[in-house]
Amino acid sequence: MIEHKISSAPFSRILRNNGAERVSDSAAKAMRDTIEETAENLSKEIIAVARHAGRKTIKKEDIELVTRPR
Amino acid sequence: MIEHKISSAPFSRILRNNGAERVSDSAAKAMRDTIEETAENLSKEIIAVARHAGRKTIKKEDIELVTRPR
Repeated sequence: MIEHKISSAPFSRILRNNGAERVSDSAAKAMRDTIEETAENLSKEIIAVARHAGRKTIKKEDIELVTRPR
Repeated sequence: MIEHKISSAPFSRILRNNGAERVSDSAAKAMRDTIEETAENLSKEIIAVARHAGRKTIKKEDIELVTRPR
């Protein structure tokens, strides 16, 4: 993906909050890329279940269905 | 998690870019919560492999090891 939708700063912060002393810039960006890809894939599933329910508006219940424990 | 590290706006954007017409506020926040939890869990694995390599600085290769195809 060329244009990033999520900033890399939060990932540096999450890593430091979980015990990292330092986080290289390229590491924060690599984590952002991974998480962004996860979000893109998840969004496709969320949209599919919303369509399945006859909606074009995404509601909280769509996320809940896709992420429910299975 | 009480204090959020990632904004919910990018998730609304990702959903709309993937075909959603509208995204409710609570849906964008639910997606943010899910992704944030994924990032928290991932960060623990990343920190474990950095420690395993004798480092307290997170490098790109730590993310690559954790997210490699298996």
